[in-house]
Amino acid sequence: MAMSHDHTFSAALIIVGNEILSGRTHDSNTPWIAEKLVAMGIRLVEVRVVPDVEAEIISAVNALRTKVDYVFTTGGIGPTHDDITSASLAKAFGTELELNREAFRLLTNHYGGEAEVTPPRKKMAMIPRGATLIANPVSAAPGFKMDNVFVMAGVPRIMQAMFDHVKDMLTPGHPILSSTIACGLQESTVAEDLSALQEKYPRVDMGSYPHYRGGILGLSLVLRSTDALALDSATQDVIAMIKRLGGQPHALSVLSTGEVASG
Amino acid sequence: MAMSHDHTFSAALIIVGNEILSGRTHDSNTPWIAEKLVAMGIRLVEVRVVPDVEAEIISAVNALRTKVDYVFTTGGIGPTHDDITSASLAKAFGTELELNREAFRLLTNHYGGEAEVTPPRKKMAMIPRGATLIANPVSAAPGFKMDNVFVMAGVPRIMQAMFDHVKDMLTPGHPILSSTIACGLQESTVAEDLSALQEKYPRVDMGSYPHYRGGILGLSLVLRSTDALALDSATQDVIAMIKRLGGQPHALSVLSTGEVASG
Repeated sequence: MAMSHDHTFSAALIIVGNEILSGRTHDSNTPWIAEKLVAMGIRLVEVRVVPDVEAEIISAVNALRTKVDYVFTTGGIGPTHDDITSASLAKAFGTELELNREAFRLLTNHYGGEAEVTPPRKKMAMIPRGATLIANPVSAAPGFKMDNVFVMAGVPRIMQAMFDHVKDMLTPGHPILSSTIACGLQESTVAEDLSALQEKYPRVDMGSYPHYRGGILGLSLVLRSTDALALDSATQDVIAMIKRLGGQPHALSVLSTGEVASG
Repeated sequence: MAMSHDHTFSAALIIVGNEILSGRTHDSNTPWIAEKLVAMGIRLVEVRVVPDVEAEIISAVNALRTKVDYVFTTGGIGPTHDDITSASLAKAFGTELELNREAFRLLTNHYGGEAEVTPPRKKMAMIPRGATLIANPVSAAPGFKMDNVFVMAGVPRIMQAMFDHVKDMLTPGHPILSSTIACGLQESTVAEDLSALQEKYPRVDMGSYPHYRGGILGLSLVLRSTDALALDSATQDVIAMIKRLGGQPHALSVLSTGEVASG
């Protein structure tokens, strides 16, 4: 567990799902998880969407679990033939799936008796040896944690319920605070001054994001830091810069240090 | 260029962007690109979202460009300090950025004279040596192609305009056709029969996706294939399976072979 110089942790997300890669389903898990992590001082540094292919899941898990503090996976832990995340995790960790007694008990309670735990349902109680269960208050079939890897369902409502339990298993860092200032200036107009401000505030990450809304080109400048004072000062400088360059700054969200202290 | 046994090509997408990793921006480029590729017989087999960090971009590009037929990148080719995709691509290919004469001419025309091509704007004409430009009809600053890697803007409207040109640079495979059948059955109810159907139709990929809509649990069964006859037959079998198991099949989209032939 390596806290970085600004007292945050790092995380990666693996989304298992042919349905995202085919374009059929829009992934809503990434922004939801990212926002929760940011608030806990955990930086999402990589997302990989991989298909329902064992070798691809194993490769992504093993590449990322040594690179970041926390790895989260979503998808592929249901009862059907294309749900292969649990088996892939077992192989990634060099262990085996086994019938998890506690998971089996949860499914027995949920479905109303052992006779109702048909083979496909029993498959959801096959968990890698040594894993810790993650409760699923929506549909019983649990996720699990192996070392620093948290395996969750892909259905957003179930994933979100599981994440409530995962949260308590994570060590929080310093919350990452942000300000967003919009204006109508072109990116190329602010580029040089913004770069100078980035150099002035090395502890504040400054990003510049052009967008079209209603056919009008706009620009959002996003500042992020764990240092509330530096963020506040940099935000004021960015607002002053926009005015100086002839733009009209519009503070979409600015965390004042007061709000930070009371939060 | 390796066509797979079903005459499709493979692709990967690299999304360069801290704004996706922070949860601020929802990625809409993945489903848009995925759908275009599917129609062209190109399977998206991996998506990676990486931060604005040179080593991470280089590593993703080099890992993926040898693994798949086509790599697409979005984001990081603008004029600001956090736009480092072009420089990273040059390094990934062991070459250098150079002032691209044609890109400079496009920017000069767009901004109305060489004097208007300020240093940040000129940065957008710095392209890896040996690259082929990708036209940008929205805001002039071009993308580029290096070998099998296509570098595009991150702003959806610009990326989509660039992709119109990229399309002509791709060799299409057989279009990947799909059927989606919804029902109210539980996944665990259909699991065994669906698995048997998957074995019966090895050329049809069958996926099972539970979802909550209005608090009601539903199930979508998605079938994909380049073989229209096999897809049609498998779709009929899935509909019959749902009825046999007591469900009500609802065909959300079914490509009949007639439609395929006329498409």
